[in-house]
Order: sequence, then structure tokens, then C-alpha cells
Amino acid sequence: MREEEYLQSLHFNSLRVKDGSLVNMSLPIVLAIDDETKGRIGSSSHVGLLGPDGDCVAILRSFEIYKHNKEERIARTWGTTAPGLPYVEEVITRAGNWLIGGDLEVLKPIKYNDGLDNYRLSPKQLRDEFDKREADAVFAFQLRNPVHNGHALLMNDTRKRLLEMGYKNPILLLHPLGGFTKADDVPLDVRMEQHSKVLEDGVLDPETTIVAIFPSPMHYAGPTEVQWHAKARINAGANFYIVGRDPAGMGHPTEKRDLYDPDHGKKVLSMAPGLEKLNILPFRVAAYDTKVNKMAFFDPTRAKDFLFISGTKMRAFAKSGENPPEGFMCPSGWNVLVKYYESLQAEEPSEQPVLST
Amino acid sequence: MREEEYLQSLHFNSLRVKDGSLVNMSLPIVLAIDDETKGRIGSSSHVGLLGPDGDCVAILRSFEIYKHNKEERIARTWGTTAPGLPYVEEVITRAGNWLIGGDLEVLKPIKYNDGLDNYRLSPKQLRDEFDKREADAVFAFQLRNPVHNGHALLMNDTRKRLLEMGYKNPILLLHPLGGFTKADDVPLDVRMEQHSKVLEDGVLDPETTIVAIFPSPMHYAGPTEVQWHAKARINAGANFYIVGRDPAGMGHPTEKRDLYDPDHGKKVLSMAPGLEKLNILPFRVAAYDTKVNKMAFFDPTRAKDFLFISGTKMRAFAKSGENPPEGFMCPSGWNVLVKYYESLQAEEPSEQPVLST
Repeated sequence: MREEEYLQSLHFNSLRVKDGSLVNMSLPIVLAIDDETKGRIGSSSHVGLLGPDGDCVAILRSFEIYKHNKEERIARTWGTTAPGLPYVEEVITRAGNWLIGGDLEVLKPIKYNDGLDNYRLSPKQLRDEFDKREADAVFAFQLRNPVHNGHALLMNDTRKRLLEMGYKNPILLLHPLGGFTKADDVPLDVRMEQHSKVLEDGVLDPETTIVAIFPSPMHYAGPTEVQWHAKARINAGANFYIVGRDPAGMGHPTEKRDLYDPDHGKKVLSMAPGLEKLNILPFRVAAYDTKVNKMAFFDPTRAKDFLFISGTKMRAFAKSGENPPEGFMCPSGWNVLVKYYESLQAEEPSEQPVLST
Repeated sequence: MREEEYLQSLHFNSLRVKDGSLVNMSLPIVLAIDDETKGRIGSSSHVGLLGPDGDCVAILRSFEIYKHNKEERIARTWGTTAPGLPYVEEVITRAGNWLIGGDLEVLKPIKYNDGLDNYRLSPKQLRDEFDKREADAVFAFQLRNPVHNGHALLMNDTRKRLLEMGYKNPILLLHPLGGFTKADDVPLDVRMEQHSKVLEDGVLDPETTIVAIFPSPMHYAGPTEVQWHAKARINAGANFYIVGRDPAGMGHPTEKRDLYDPDHGKKVLSMAPGLEKLNILPFRVAAYDTKVNKMAFFDPTRAKDFLFISGTKMRAFAKSGENPPEGFMCPSGWNVLVKYYESLQAEEPSEQPVLST
């Protein structure tokens, strides 16, 4: 992004394009450079962007270099500058004090060479795929966690509702986030294997589901980030977007409360400039119904029958080798997680009893 | 503001109105209440708003009460949460943890009873006044400081340029800010007296100038606040707005730098949603030209001939009884400031020499 786009993104969460209309853009997409790189660039007219293996993957022409005011970027994006925001600590704090933006010519698509590149479909590839399948509605589900049967219930129910609305062939875009996530989230390769099992097992229908990786890093920026999550999926051909409670939220890094009001994400998304045509589908809460031993939509009139299985609880089950209640997740998918947590424990130093003297 | 408007103001600096268009609104206009007041309101259907003298001045109906997340409000408005932001310390920090918003019925205009109420013209009163004077262009100048001859040069030059552009009767709206300012700014009553002298003296032409008070508090929120400064003047009938370097800016409260990039205010203003029809007039820098002994537009090719007289320098002159260079400010206006700084010194404990033992 040039500075003009960066400022619009920070202040207005949207960019004005040539025809005068607004395009939603709540997170700035910028490239930071340090003093040394700025010095090396000097008065060059264009610069090459190198991939991780040193290959030139793109050329940036008629570029501009402008100040990277990190404090302002963080405050306006997260609504806090408290220490401990994962993406800030991982990326922004250690980045350079300058931003460079210009006209980008991409020479070849980025390859990660991690065995998952076939899942990394561009927005155009996704739109072509939806055309090929003759989808008349595409509903997107953003997730960064393993798929349990509650998620599946929600996605299958959404498809049912779209069919009831008169759509003939609604397609699900299951679009797990593939970039940076915080340390206690399950890594991408494990999640992709788990998602495969869920489809193999028929919990989700492979005929009406496309699984692809959304290569963005997770910002955990709540109402600001959820706009980006929705906008990117619209670009990729989706016209329905499922939004839950506290999307892209997390606990406040230094205070004992949610960083964002759990309702603000959906509210802000519904009012965001450039997203007027988005159809927002509210996320219905699913929990384990102990009366029927399966995941079901939560019924507040008999709240005590429902069991909420958090990520922390799931990890505790997997680590201890205990199975979650039957019907929580398909067994083959669950096994993927058990193996992952076992491998983690093998790496961790075992806790030896210490003799007190 | 209701929460829906508050969130749009914080995230998008603009509100979507019924016809689908965007109205610029970069600062939230909210009423904070504390737990005790919230408790007293209970399940009332409407509440009365009392003026400083206890009179009921307005009724708020079908209201809603929502959380006042101060950290988020501050971060998204100022782009920093550093301690020492004047408006934050004066107003937000000590305000309640709830906001109340609804349908406002104003029963009577607010009176300050400070002898300046005749200057407090509503937007409608101002528009009527411009109509009465048959203005075909109205240019607004926001200021919170005494008017020196450099300001006057700029305003008179703007009028000349508007005449050259073909307007027959451009009117200046000299619109000093009348709400909270930081402690070292000159108080409103002194500034209004100084402005009167400038008009009496003919430095500004009373025939083509309207002086009125803009009752807003100063936020010192740079690029975010300058949108509000411009938008409010458009509401009051202005179609040209003069913007200088670092509008509504200040030094960073804890770091040795400007809080905002001095160019960002003008850039952000020029791209702001809802302000597409605003004509922005760049503020040309005026300084004291020692070759001709008057304020003149700064000429960088002979920079050393120019003297910049800052507010701090002005205060030092006035306090010491020394006159600023001739032609810096009309003598009658200058006398108002001298009297004010003398009265300040009389209040300050005099510095007695201390004998060291």
C-alpha cells in the first residue's frame, strides 16, 4: 500500500476507488523496511521482492517510502496499545520503521513448499471453481480451529436454510486461516489433515464443499479484522458469510476481560462501508447436548443439558488420552489431534519429581 | 449518540444515513454516565438533561445505555493511549463507564451567561446570516489562538483568490473554538476581545467577516479531529475550509516528536468519506519578513530573512512587557494579550530570591 491507501485503511477502514465508490479494507497490507534497506534502495526506480528461497517473485515500481508509525497503526487497528497482542509482538514490533508501497507486478505465485500449496487457491481460482460447480450461492466459514460436529451442524444447517430460501446449489467455502496464529492454536498442517478426515468421514459433504487455505495472518483484531475476513471471501466469490460471537477476538492482553465486546464484531461488520451487499448469517451456538449425546443448537430453556467444550478442554482431553463425549467430533478427525498433542508432549521436557532437601 | 452511531464514528469516521449516503462524523458525541446515575435511571422511559443551573434543557427518549470502553475510544480517536492527552485527562478519564444515547428533544438553546452568548450562533443562524449578506462563497478559518497579521494576511489573500476565481461576495467565517482548550492556550474571553480589536482596527474587514464561537471542545486529535472541524463548518454554510500544517496537532505527550505527521491532517481530510464536496484551501505559511518589517508569505529562497514567532515567544514578549516586531499584530490586539499575561503574573506567586545557606 502507498501512504494514501494506508491512511484510508487506518482511518476509514475503506478505500475510495476511481469510480468514487468505497471498497472495504480494514487492515493495511504493507511492507515494512528498516533504515539499512531504505539506504540500500537509495534512489532506485524499482525494487525486486524476494521469496524465502531468494527467488525474485515480484517487482515494485514507482514506489514511495513513508514512515511506519507503529504506535498509531496498533492503536487504530486494535483499539489498544497494551503489550501482549500476538501479531504486534510477532510482526509489527520487530518490523522496520518505514513502509514501502507502489505498483506491484507479481512474477509468479508464492509457493510455500509445505505440501499444502494445492489448497492455496487464489480468489480467481476459487471463483472459477464455484462457476465450474454451478454454485448459485456460496457461503463462507472462517476458522482457525479443528472442525467439530457443532461447526458441521452449523454449516449443514446453513446449506439447508439456503436451499429453503430457493437456492438450488449452495456451496460451502471452508476456508481455514493459513497465516500466523498464536502459539496455543493448532498448527495449519494438523488442521488441514483434521479437515480432510471430516470430509472423508462425510461429516461435511465433499460434493458441496470446497476446502482452501486463506493465507492471511491472524491479527486477533476483532471488529476491525472481521471486515477483512468477510471482504476477502467476497472477493473469492462468496455472497454469504457466517459470523459468530466475538469474531477474531481474544482476551485482553493485560486485563481480565474480553478485548472486544463480543457483539461488536457482527455490528461493525453489518455497518461497514463497502460491505453493503454482504449477506451476514448469524452463527448459532452449538454445544454438546447430553440428552441426545450429540452436538446440537443450544437451547437456553434447558441450559443445564448442554456441555460447552472449549479449546482448552479439548487439549486437556487429547493430552490425557481421554476421549471427548461421543458425537463431539468424528473419531478419525479426533485421532489427528490426539497424535498432535502426543507429539507436543514428547517434545516437552518431562516433569521430573524434585526432592526437596 | 446511540451505540450504532458511536461504533461507526470510531471505526469509519462516518455514519450511514437513511438514504444510504455517508455523513462524516469523526468524533463521537456521547454522554457518559456513572453506575450511580445508571441505577437511578433504572427502567425510566425518558430522562431530562439539566443545564449547569439545574434547568431542564432537553429530553432524551427511547434511549439506550451501553458500555463506555475508554481505552478503545481513546486508541481509535487519538491513535495513542499515552498518558497526558489533554482532553482525555480533562474529560474522558473522569467520565462514567456507561454511555447513554437516544432521541434528543432540545427544549431551549444552551446559554453560558458569560457575556459571549451573542457570538454563539447555531449552524442555522450562521447560514441565515450568510444568506442575508448574499454570500456566494463562505470560507472558514478555525483557530484557537489570537489572530496575528500572518493569519490576517492569509484570510485576506484567500478572499482575493476567491474573487479572482469569479466569486462576487466571499464571506469569511472567523470561527474560534470556544470549548475546552489546554491550560497554556489563551482563554476564550481574551481571544474574543483580541479578535474584536483586530476587526475594529480594520486588519480584517468587518463588512466581509462574521465572527462566531464554535462551541466544541478541543480534542488535539489531529487528522481525526480536523474532519470534525471541517464538517461542522460545512454544516454552518461554509464551502471552503483553510487547512494548515498539523491541524489540531500537538507534541506527543511522552515522546520527543509531533504526535501526528504534520502532513496527515490535510491528506486524511482530502480523502474523508462524506467530505467529497469540501473545497480545501491549503494554509500558506506566513512569517515576519525582516526585510519589509511585516508579516509575509514565507519565501524559502530567502529563509534567513524570516522570523517565526511562536506562541511561546509571544508569551515571553507579553510577559516581559517587550513589544513584538512592528507589524506582527495590531497594537490594540496586542494590548489585550499584554493585559492578560500581566493578570496571570499578578496571580502567580512571585519568585523570591532564596539565600543559600
